[in-house]
Amino acid sequence: MNECTAPESESSTQPGGTGLPRAVVLLSGGLDSTTVLAIARARGFEPWALTVRYGQRHAVEIDAARRVAAAAGVAGHEEIAVDLGRIGGSALTSDRIEVPKDREPGEGGIPVTYVPARNTVLLSLAVAWAEVLGAEDVFIGVNSIDYSGYPDCRPEFLEAFERAVALGLAADRIRIHAPLAELTKAEIIRWGTELGVDYAMTTSCYDPSPSGAACGRCEACILRRRGFEEAGVGDPTTYV
Amino acid sequence: MNECTAPESESSTQPGGTGLPRAVVLLSGGLDSTTVLAIARARGFEPWALTVRYGQRHAVEIDAARRVAAAAGVAGHEEIAVDLGRIGGSALTSDRIEVPKDREPGEGGIPVTYVPARNTVLLSLAVAWAEVLGAEDVFIGVNSIDYSGYPDCRPEFLEAFERAVALGLAADRIRIHAPLAELTKAEIIRWGTELGVDYAMTTSCYDPSPSGAACGRCEACILRRRGFEEAGVGDPTTYV
Repeated sequence: MNECTAPESESSTQPGGTGLPRAVVLLSGGLDSTTVLAIARARGFEPWALTVRYGQRHAVEIDAARRVAAAAGVAGHEEIAVDLGRIGGSALTSDRIEVPKDREPGEGGIPVTYVPARNTVLLSLAVAWAEVLGAEDVFIGVNSIDYSGYPDCRPEFLEAFERAVALGLAADRIRIHAPLAELTKAEIIRWGTELGVDYAMTTSCYDPSPSGAACGRCEACILRRRGFEEAGVGDPTTYV
Repeated sequence: MNECTAPESESSTQPGGTGLPRAVVLLSGGLDSTTVLAIARARGFEPWALTVRYGQRHAVEIDAARRVAAAAGVAGHEEIAVDLGRIGGSALTSDRIEVPKDREPGEGGIPVTYVPARNTVLLSLAVAWAEVLGAEDVFIGVNSIDYSGYPDCRPEFLEAFERAVALGLAADRIRIHAPLAELTKAEIIRWGTELGVDYAMTTSCYDPSPSGAACGRCEACILRRRGFEEAGVGDPTTYV
Protein backbone atom coordinates (compact mmCIF):
# COMPACT_ATOMS: atom_id res chain seq x y z
CA MET A 1 0.00 0.00 0.00
CA ASN A 2 2.86 2.35 0.60
CA GLU A 3 6.61 2.36 0.88
CA CYS A 4 9.21 3.96 3.01
CA THR A 5 12.31 5.08 1.24
CA ALA A 6 15.47 5.08 3.26
CA PRO A 7 17.30 8.21 2.24
CA GLU A 8 21.02 7.86 1.94
CA SER A 9 22.18 10.42 4.42
CA GLU A 10 24.02 10.68 7.68
CA SER A 11 20.90 11.56 9.60
CA SER A 12 18.98 8.49 8.42
CA THR A 13 21.47 6.28 10.19
CA GLN A 14 21.10 8.31 13.37
CA PRO A 15 17.43 9.26 13.46
CA GLY A 16 16.84 12.09 15.86
CA GLY A 17 20.51 12.20 16.60
CA THR A 18 21.15 15.63 15.21
CA GLY A 19 20.08 17.31 18.41
CA LEU A 20 17.85 19.64 16.41
CA PRO A 21 14.09 19.86 16.88
CA ARG A 22 12.20 17.62 14.50
CA ALA A 23 9.80 19.00 11.92
CA VAL A 24 7.50 17.22 9.50
CA VAL A 25 7.73 18.68 6.00
CA LEU A 26 5.02 17.85 3.48
CA LEU A 27 7.00 17.06 0.35
CA SER A 28 5.27 16.57 -2.98
CA GLY A 29 8.39 16.79 -5.08
CA GLY A 30 7.25 20.09 -6.56
CA LEU A 31 8.99 23.44 -6.58
CA ASP A 32 7.25 24.86 -3.52
CA SER A 33 7.56 21.93 -1.12
CA THR A 34 11.18 21.37 -2.11
CA THR A 35 11.92 24.99 -1.26
CA VAL A 36 10.10 24.59 2.05
CA LEU A 37 12.23 21.58 2.92
CA ALA A 38 15.35 23.70 2.44
CA ILE A 39 13.80 26.49 4.54
CA ALA A 40 12.97 24.09 7.39
CA ARG A 41 16.56 22.95 7.46
CA ALA A 42 17.89 26.51 7.26
CA ARG A 43 15.69 27.44 10.22
CA GLY A 44 17.39 24.84 12.36
CA PHE A 45 14.97 21.91 12.17
CA GLU A 46 15.73 18.26 11.54
CA PRO A 47 13.39 17.61 8.62
CA TRP A 48 11.24 14.48 8.31
CA ALA A 49 9.61 14.40 4.89
CA LEU A 50 6.07 13.14 4.36
CA THR A 51 4.85 12.37 0.86
CA VAL A 52 1.18 11.56 0.45
CA ARG A 53 0.11 9.50 -2.52
CA TYR A 54 -3.44 10.71 -2.89
CA GLY A 55 -4.21 9.16 -6.24
CA GLN A 56 -2.79 11.99 -8.28
CA ARG A 57 -2.39 11.33 -11.98
CA HIS A 58 1.00 12.96 -12.01
CA ALA A 59 2.72 10.16 -10.08
CA VAL A 60 6.01 11.38 -11.51
CA GLU A 61 5.85 13.74 -8.50
CA ILE A 62 6.48 10.80 -6.19
CA ASP A 63 9.74 10.01 -7.96
CA ALA A 64 10.73 13.63 -7.64
CA ALA A 65 9.92 13.58 -3.92
CA ARG A 66 12.21 10.60 -3.44
CA ARG A 67 15.06 12.30 -5.30
CA VAL A 68 14.62 15.51 -3.33
CA ALA A 69 14.42 13.75 0.05
CA ALA A 70 17.54 11.71 -0.66
CA ALA A 71 19.48 14.73 -1.88
CA ALA A 72 18.41 16.82 1.11
CA GLY A 73 19.49 14.11 3.54
CA VAL A 74 16.25 14.14 5.52
CA ALA A 75 16.12 12.25 8.82
CA GLY A 76 13.30 10.10 7.44
CA HIS A 77 11.00 9.99 4.43
CA GLU A 78 7.60 8.39 4.80
CA GLU A 79 5.05 7.79 2.06
CA ILE A 80 1.41 7.34 2.96
CA ALA A 81 -1.21 6.31 0.44
CA VAL A 82 -4.73 7.65 0.68
CA ASP A 83 -6.85 7.22 -2.38
CA LEU A 84 -8.63 10.52 -2.80
CA GLY A 85 -9.27 9.41 -6.37
CA ARG A 86 -11.78 7.06 -4.78
CA ILE A 87 -14.06 9.99 -4.03
CA GLY A 88 -13.32 11.79 -7.27
CA GLY A 89 -14.05 15.42 -7.93
CA SER A 90 -10.73 16.60 -9.36
CA ALA A 91 -8.86 16.57 -12.63
CA LEU A 92 -5.74 15.65 -10.66
CA THR A 93 -7.17 12.34 -9.47
CA SER A 94 -9.72 11.40 -12.09
CA ASP A 95 -9.19 10.23 -15.63
CA ARG A 96 -12.63 11.52 -16.46
CA ILE A 97 -11.77 15.19 -15.94
CA GLU A 98 -9.29 16.85 -18.29
CA VAL A 99 -6.44 19.00 -17.00
CA PRO A 100 -7.13 22.46 -18.46
CA LYS A 101 -4.48 23.95 -20.72
CA ASP A 102 -3.56 27.55 -21.55
CA ARG A 103 -5.86 28.88 -18.84
CA GLU A 104 -4.86 31.93 -16.83
CA PRO A 105 -4.12 30.70 -13.29
CA GLY A 106 -6.42 32.08 -10.61
CA GLU A 107 -9.13 33.23 -13.00
CA GLY A 108 -12.61 31.81 -13.19
CA GLY A 109 -12.99 30.65 -9.59
CA ILE A 110 -11.90 27.33 -8.19
CA PRO A 111 -10.51 25.18 -11.02
CA VAL A 112 -11.18 21.50 -11.73
CA THR A 113 -7.66 20.70 -10.57
CA TYR A 114 -8.77 21.52 -7.01
CA VAL A 115 -8.70 18.30 -4.98
CA PRO A 116 -11.46 18.54 -2.39
CA ALA A 117 -10.04 19.17 1.08
CA ARG A 118 -6.59 18.09 -0.05
CA ASN A 119 -4.60 20.32 2.25
CA THR A 120 -6.90 19.42 5.13
CA VAL A 121 -6.13 15.76 4.53
CA LEU A 122 -2.39 16.38 4.03
CA LEU A 123 -2.12 18.46 7.19
CA SER A 124 -4.08 15.89 9.19
CA LEU A 125 -1.60 13.20 8.22
CA ALA A 126 1.33 15.51 8.90
CA VAL A 127 0.16 16.38 12.40
CA ALA A 128 -0.51 12.70 13.10
CA TRP A 129 3.07 11.86 12.21
CA ALA A 130 4.40 14.90 14.06
CA GLU A 131 2.70 13.67 17.18
CA VAL A 132 4.29 10.24 16.84
CA LEU A 133 7.71 11.77 16.21
CA GLY A 134 7.39 14.22 19.08
CA ALA A 135 7.63 17.10 16.61
CA GLU A 136 5.80 20.35 17.26
CA ASP A 137 6.35 21.81 13.81
CA VAL A 138 4.82 21.06 10.43
CA PHE A 139 5.86 22.76 7.20
CA ILE A 140 3.64 23.06 4.13
CA GLY A 141 4.38 24.78 0.85
CA VAL A 142 1.06 26.45 0.25
CA ASN A 143 1.05 29.79 -1.42
CA SER A 144 -1.73 32.28 -1.86
CA ILE A 145 -0.15 34.73 -4.27
CA ASP A 146 0.80 32.93 -7.46
CA TYR A 147 -1.68 30.17 -6.93
CA SER A 148 -4.64 28.60 -8.59
CA GLY A 149 -7.41 29.82 -6.31
CA TYR A 150 -7.66 26.81 -4.03
CA PRO A 151 -9.50 27.78 -0.83
CA ASP A 152 -7.35 25.56 1.38
CA CYS A 153 -4.22 27.57 0.54
CA ARG A 154 -5.52 30.64 2.38
CA PRO A 155 -3.70 31.76 5.56
CA GLU A 156 -7.06 32.04 7.37
CA PHE A 157 -7.59 28.33 6.80
CA LEU A 158 -4.14 27.41 8.05
CA GLU A 159 -4.53 29.49 11.20
CA ALA A 160 -7.95 27.99 11.96
CA PHE A 161 -6.63 24.50 11.31
CA GLU A 162 -3.72 25.07 13.68
CA ARG A 163 -6.14 26.11 16.42
CA ALA A 164 -8.33 23.05 15.77
CA VAL A 165 -5.56 20.46 15.87
CA ALA A 166 -4.15 21.96 19.05
CA LEU A 167 -7.43 20.97 20.69
CA GLY A 168 -7.51 17.52 19.10
CA LEU A 169 -4.01 16.30 19.76
CA ALA A 170 -2.34 14.75 22.73
CA ALA A 171 0.61 17.07 22.04
CA ASP A 172 0.53 20.48 23.63
CA ARG A 173 0.70 22.29 20.34
CA ILE A 174 1.58 22.04 16.71
CA ARG A 175 2.84 24.99 14.77
CA ILE A 176 1.95 25.03 11.09
CA HIS A 177 4.56 26.84 9.07
CA ALA A 178 3.66 28.11 5.61
CA PRO A 179 6.70 30.20 4.80
CA LEU A 180 5.70 30.68 1.17
CA ALA A 181 2.20 31.90 1.91
CA GLU A 182 2.79 35.51 0.99
CA LEU A 183 5.49 35.10 -1.66
CA THR A 184 5.36 35.27 -5.42
CA LYS A 185 6.68 32.30 -7.38
CA ALA A 186 9.71 34.37 -8.39
CA GLU A 187 10.46 35.18 -4.74
CA ILE A 188 10.17 31.50 -3.85
CA ILE A 189 12.61 30.54 -6.59
CA ARG A 190 15.09 33.23 -5.55
CA TRP A 191 14.94 32.09 -1.92
CA GLY A 192 15.36 28.42 -2.84
CA THR A 193 18.24 29.23 -5.16
CA GLU A 194 20.02 31.07 -2.32
CA LEU A 195 19.53 27.96 -0.18
CA GLY A 196 21.07 25.77 -2.86
CA VAL A 197 17.90 24.04 -4.09
CA ASP A 198 18.39 22.19 -7.35
CA TYR A 199 15.09 22.76 -9.10
CA ALA A 200 16.01 20.30 -11.86
CA MET A 201 15.04 17.57 -9.39
CA THR A 202 11.53 18.96 -8.90
CA THR A 203 8.42 18.64 -11.00
CA SER A 204 5.32 20.82 -11.05
CA CYS A 205 3.37 19.77 -14.17
CA TYR A 206 -0.18 18.47 -13.68
CA ASP A 207 -0.06 16.49 -16.90
CA PRO A 208 3.48 15.33 -17.61
CA SER A 209 4.44 13.03 -20.47
CA PRO A 210 5.23 9.40 -19.62
CA SER A 211 8.92 10.32 -19.63
CA GLY A 212 8.26 13.04 -17.05
CA ALA A 213 8.58 16.03 -19.36
CA ALA A 214 6.37 18.98 -18.40
CA CYS A 215 3.48 19.96 -20.68
CA GLY A 216 4.26 23.66 -20.34
CA ARG A 217 0.59 24.60 -20.66
CA CYS A 218 -1.23 23.60 -17.46
CA GLU A 219 -1.70 26.11 -14.62
CA ALA A 220 1.24 24.69 -12.69
CA CYS A 221 3.59 24.90 -15.68
CA ILE A 222 2.49 28.45 -16.49
CA LEU A 223 3.10 29.62 -12.92
CA ARG A 224 6.45 27.85 -12.73
CA ARG A 225 7.75 29.08 -16.05
CA ARG A 226 6.81 32.69 -15.28
CA GLY A 227 8.43 32.34 -11.86
CA PHE A 228 11.80 31.45 -13.34
CA GLU A 229 11.51 34.28 -15.88
CA GLU A 230 10.65 36.87 -13.23
CA ALA A 231 13.32 35.58 -10.86
CA GLY A 232 15.96 35.82 -13.54
CA VAL A 233 16.93 32.24 -12.79
CA GLY A 234 17.48 29.69 -15.55
CA ASP A 235 14.52 27.30 -15.86
CA PRO A 236 15.91 23.75 -15.63
CA THR A 237 12.54 22.19 -16.54
CA THR A 238 12.35 19.76 -19.45
CA TYR A 239 9.28 20.63 -21.50
CA VAL A 240 7.72 18.40 -24.16
CA MET B 1 -6.29 -0.51 -2.25
CA ASN B 2 -9.89 -0.13 -1.33
CA GLU B 3 -13.29 -1.32 -2.34
CA CYS B 4 -16.74 0.08 -2.73
CA THR B 5 -19.51 -2.10 -1.53
CA ALA B 6 -22.79 -1.73 -3.31
CA PRO B 7 -25.41 -1.90 -0.60
CA GLU B 8 -28.55 -3.76 -1.48
CA SER B 9 -31.09 -1.04 -1.05
CA GLU B 10 -33.58 0.98 -3.05
CA SER B 11 -31.53 4.13 -2.70
CA SER B 12 -28.34 2.60 -4.07
CA THR B 13 -30.06 2.09 -7.39
CA GLN B 14 -31.20 5.71 -7.39
CA PRO B 15 -28.32 7.63 -5.86
CA GLY B 16 -29.45 11.01 -4.67
CA GLY B 17 -32.93 10.19 -5.83
CA THR B 18 -34.56 10.29 -2.44
CA GLY B 19 -34.99 14.04 -2.57
CA LEU B 20 -33.45 14.30 0.91
CA PRO B 21 -30.29 16.26 1.70
CA ARG B 22 -27.20 14.11 1.58
CA ALA B 23 -25.04 13.55 4.62
CA VAL B 24 -21.73 11.74 4.98
CA VAL B 25 -21.72 9.41 7.98
CA LEU B 26 -18.40 8.07 9.28
CA LEU B 27 -19.14 4.41 9.87
CA SER B 28 -16.67 2.17 11.66
CA GLY B 29 -19.09 -0.67 12.28
CA GLY B 30 -19.02 -0.01 16.00
CA LEU B 31 -21.88 0.73 18.34
CA ASP B 32 -21.58 4.50 18.24
CA SER B 33 -21.24 5.08 14.51
CA THR B 34 -24.03 2.61 13.77
CA THR B 35 -26.30 4.57 16.09
CA VAL B 36 -25.27 7.81 14.38
CA LEU B 37 -26.19 6.36 11.00
CA ALA B 38 -29.70 5.67 12.29
CA ILE B 39 -29.88 9.18 13.77
CA ALA B 40 -28.83 10.80 10.48
CA ARG B 41 -31.60 8.94 8.71
CA ALA B 42 -34.16 9.78 11.42
CA ARG B 43 -33.22 13.46 11.07
CA GLY B 44 -34.18 13.41 7.43
CA PHE B 45 -30.84 12.96 5.69
CA GLU B 46 -29.94 10.59 2.88
CA PRO B 47 -26.93 8.84 4.45
CA TRP B 48 -23.72 8.10 2.55
CA ALA B 49 -21.48 5.92 4.67
CA LEU B 50 -17.69 6.36 4.73
CA THR B 51 -15.52 3.66 6.26
CA VAL B 52 -11.84 4.43 6.64
CA ARG B 53 -9.40 1.56 6.83
CA TYR B 54 -6.64 3.16 8.79
CA GLY B 55 -4.57 0.08 9.49
CA GLN B 56 -6.48 -0.94 12.61
CA ARG B 57 -5.74 -4.39 13.95
CA HIS B 58 -9.43 -5.05 14.53
CA ALA B 59 -10.28 -5.34 10.83
CA VAL B 60 -13.38 -7.27 11.84
CA GLU B 61 -14.84 -3.76 12.17
CA ILE B 62 -14.76 -3.38 8.40
CA ASP B 63 -16.96 -6.45 7.97
CA ALA B 64 -19.34 -5.03 10.55
CA ALA B 65 -19.44 -1.71 8.69
CA ARG B 66 -20.42 -3.50 5.49
CA ARG B 67 -23.21 -5.40 7.23
CA VAL B 68 -24.52 -2.25 8.88
CA ALA B 69 -24.40 -0.19 5.69
CA ALA B 70 -26.20 -2.87 3.72
CA ALA B 71 -28.87 -3.33 6.39
CA ALA B 72 -29.38 0.42 6.72
CA GLY B 73 -29.84 0.82 2.98
CA VAL B 74 -27.42 3.70 2.65
CA ALA B 75 -27.31 5.64 -0.61
CA GLY B 76 -23.66 4.71 -1.02
CA HIS B 77 -20.86 3.13 1.01
CA GLU B 78 -17.28 4.08 0.29
CA GLU B 79 -14.18 2.61 1.83
CA ILE B 80 -10.94 4.58 1.81
CA ALA B 81 -7.63 3.11 2.90
CA VAL B 82 -5.07 5.27 4.66
CA ASP B 83 -2.35 3.43 6.44
CA LEU B 84 -1.96 5.22 9.76
CA GLY B 85 -0.15 2.08 10.92
CA ARG B 86 2.67 3.36 8.72
CA ILE B 87 3.38 6.13 11.19
CA GLY B 88 2.75 3.97 14.26
CA GLY B 89 2.13 5.26 17.71
CA SER B 90 -0.99 3.31 18.70
CA ALA B 91 -1.89 -0.11 20.03
CA LEU B 92 -4.75 -0.14 17.52
CA THR B 93 -2.45 -0.02 14.51
CA SER B 94 0.79 -1.55 15.73
CA ASP B 95 1.57 -5.13 16.57
CA ARG B 96 4.33 -3.91 18.82
CA ILE B 97 2.00 -2.24 21.34
CA GLU B 98 -0.32 -4.43 23.42
CA VAL B 99 -4.00 -3.56 23.82
CA PRO B 100 -4.42 -3.00 27.57
CA LYS B 101 -6.89 -5.25 29.41
CA ASP B 102 -8.93 -4.74 32.57
CA ARG B 103 -8.01 -1.07 32.70
CA GLU B 104 -10.56 1.47 33.89
CA PRO B 105 -11.53 3.54 30.81
CA GLY B 106 -10.63 7.21 31.05
CA GLU B 107 -8.11 6.81 33.85
CA GLY B 108 -4.40 7.41 33.58
CA GLY B 109 -4.41 9.98 30.79
CA ILE B 110 -4.41 9.31 27.08
CA PRO B 111 -4.16 5.53 26.54
CA VAL B 112 -1.98 3.65 24.07
CA THR B 113 -5.06 2.85 21.98
CA TYR B 114 -5.19 6.54 21.00
CA VAL B 115 -4.47 6.81 17.27
CA PRO B 116 -2.68 10.11 16.68
CA ALA B 117 -4.97 12.63 15.00
CA ARG B 118 -7.37 9.86 13.97
CA ASN B 119 -10.53 11.92 14.11
CA THR B 120 -8.78 14.78 12.35
CA VAL B 121 -7.89 12.43 9.51
CA LEU B 122 -11.36 10.82 9.46
CA LEU B 123 -13.13 14.17 9.39
CA SER B 124 -10.82 15.47 6.66
CA LEU B 125 -11.75 12.55 4.44
CA ALA B 126 -15.43 12.95 5.29
CA VAL B 127 -15.51 16.62 4.38
CA ALA B 128 -13.62 15.87 1.16
CA TRP B 129 -16.29 13.38 0.13
CA ALA B 130 -19.08 15.67 1.33
CA GLU B 131 -17.78 18.34 -0.96
CA VAL B 132 -17.77 15.99 -3.93
CA LEU B 133 -21.29 14.78 -3.12
CA GLY B 134 -22.62 18.28 -2.58
CA ALA B 135 -23.40 17.41 1.02
CA GLU B 136 -23.20 20.06 3.75
CA ASP B 137 -23.48 17.65 6.65
CA VAL B 138 -21.05 15.18 8.19
CA PHE B 139 -21.93 12.87 11.08
CA ILE B 140 -19.38 11.38 13.46
CA GLY B 141 -20.00 9.16 16.47
CA VAL B 142 -17.53 10.68 18.88
CA ASN B 143 -18.45 10.76 22.51
CA SER B 144 -16.85 12.57 25.39
CA ILE B 145 -18.68 11.04 28.35
CA ASP B 146 -18.10 7.28 28.38
CA TYR B 147 -14.91 7.51 26.43
CA SER B 148 -11.29 6.66 26.72
CA GLY B 149 -9.82 10.12 27.08
CA TYR B 150 -8.93 10.78 23.46
CA PRO B 151 -8.39 14.52 22.94
CA ASP B 152 -9.94 14.53 19.47
CA CYS B 153 -13.33 13.49 20.87
CA ARG B 154 -13.80 16.81 22.65
CA PRO B 155 -16.58 19.15 21.46
CA GLU B 156 -14.10 22.08 21.46
CA PHE B 157 -12.04 20.22 18.87
CA LEU B 158 -15.04 19.50 16.67
CA GLU B 159 -16.21 23.12 16.76
CA ALA B 160 -12.75 24.42 15.89
CA PHE B 161 -12.41 21.88 13.10
CA GLU B 162 -15.77 22.92 11.65
CA ARG B 163 -14.60 26.53 11.55
CA ALA B 164 -11.31 25.55 9.91
CA VAL B 165 -12.80 23.43 7.15
CA ALA B 166 -15.36 26.11 6.34
CA LEU B 167 -12.38 28.30 5.38
CA GLY B 168 -10.62 25.55 3.45
CA LEU B 169 -13.40 24.19 1.31
CA ALA B 170 -14.92 25.31 -1.92
CA ALA B 171 -18.32 24.57 -0.34
CA ASP B 172 -19.95 27.37 1.60
CA ARG B 173 -20.08 25.39 4.80
CA ILE B 174 -19.95 21.98 6.36
CA ARG B 175 -21.82 21.18 9.53
CA ILE B 176 -20.19 18.55 11.73
CA HIS B 177 -22.80 16.65 13.70
CA ALA B 178 -21.71 14.74 16.78
CA PRO B 179 -25.08 13.76 18.25
CA LEU B 180 -23.56 11.42 20.81
CA ALA B 181 -21.06 13.92 22.18
CA GLU B 182 -22.83 14.49 25.48
CA LEU B 183 -24.46 11.09 25.98
CA THR B 184 -23.56 8.16 28.17
CA LYS B 185 -23.11 4.78 26.51
CA ALA B 186 -26.41 3.64 28.04
CA GLU B 187 -28.23 6.66 26.58
CA ILE B 188 -26.70 5.92 23.16
CA ILE B 189 -27.88 2.31 23.33
CA ARG B 190 -31.40 3.32 24.38
CA TRP B 191 -31.64 5.86 21.57
CA GLY B 192 -30.38 3.39 18.97
CA THR B 193 -32.71 0.71 20.23
CA GLU B 194 -35.66 3.09 19.81
CA LEU B 195 -34.49 3.71 16.23
CA GLY B 196 -34.40 -0.02 15.55
CA VAL B 197 -30.63 -0.51 15.49
CA ASP B 198 -29.60 -4.17 15.65
CA TYR B 199 -26.46 -4.03 17.77
CA ALA B 200 -25.71 -7.68 17.06
CA MET B 201 -24.33 -6.46 13.72
CA THR B 202 -21.86 -4.09 15.37
CA THR B 203 -18.48 -4.71 16.94
CA SER B 204 -16.54 -2.61 19.44
CA CYS B 205 -13.70 -4.81 20.69
CA TYR B 206 -10.13 -3.55 20.17
CA ASP B 207 -8.71 -7.08 20.28
CA PRO B 208 -11.26 -9.56 18.91
CA SER B 209 -10.57 -13.24 18.35
CA PRO B 210 -10.04 -14.40 14.76
CA SER B 211 -13.70 -15.47 14.68
CA GLY B 212 -14.76 -11.95 15.67
CA ALA B 213 -15.71 -12.68 19.28
CA ALA B 214 -15.10 -9.78 21.65
CA CYS B 215 -12.38 -10.05 24.30
CA GLY B 216 -14.63 -8.51 26.98
CA ARG B 217 -11.65 -6.92 28.71
CA CYS B 218 -10.36 -4.03 26.60
CA GLU B 219 -11.57 -0.47 27.22
CA ALA B 220 -14.07 -0.67 24.38
CA CYS B 221 -15.57 -3.93 25.64
CA ILE B 222 -15.80 -2.64 29.20
CA LEU B 223 -17.61 0.53 28.10
CA ARG B 224 -19.95 -1.39 25.79
CA ARG B 225 -20.85 -4.09 28.31
CA ARG B 226 -21.60 -1.55 31.03
CA GLY B 227 -23.68 0.44 28.56
CA PHE B 228 -26.00 -2.46 27.87
CA GLU B 229 -26.29 -3.21 31.58
CA GLU B 230 -27.11 0.39 32.47
CA ALA B 231 -29.52 0.73 29.57
CA GLY B 232 -31.37 -2.42 30.62
CA VAL B 233 -31.00 -3.69 27.06
CA GLY B 234 -29.88 -7.24 26.36
CA ASP B 235 -26.23 -7.36 25.23
CA PRO B 236 -26.10 -9.24 21.91
CA THR B 237 -22.28 -9.31 21.87
CA THR B 238 -20.51 -12.65 21.50
CA TYR B 239 -17.63 -12.74 23.99
CA VAL B 240 -14.76 -15.24 23.96
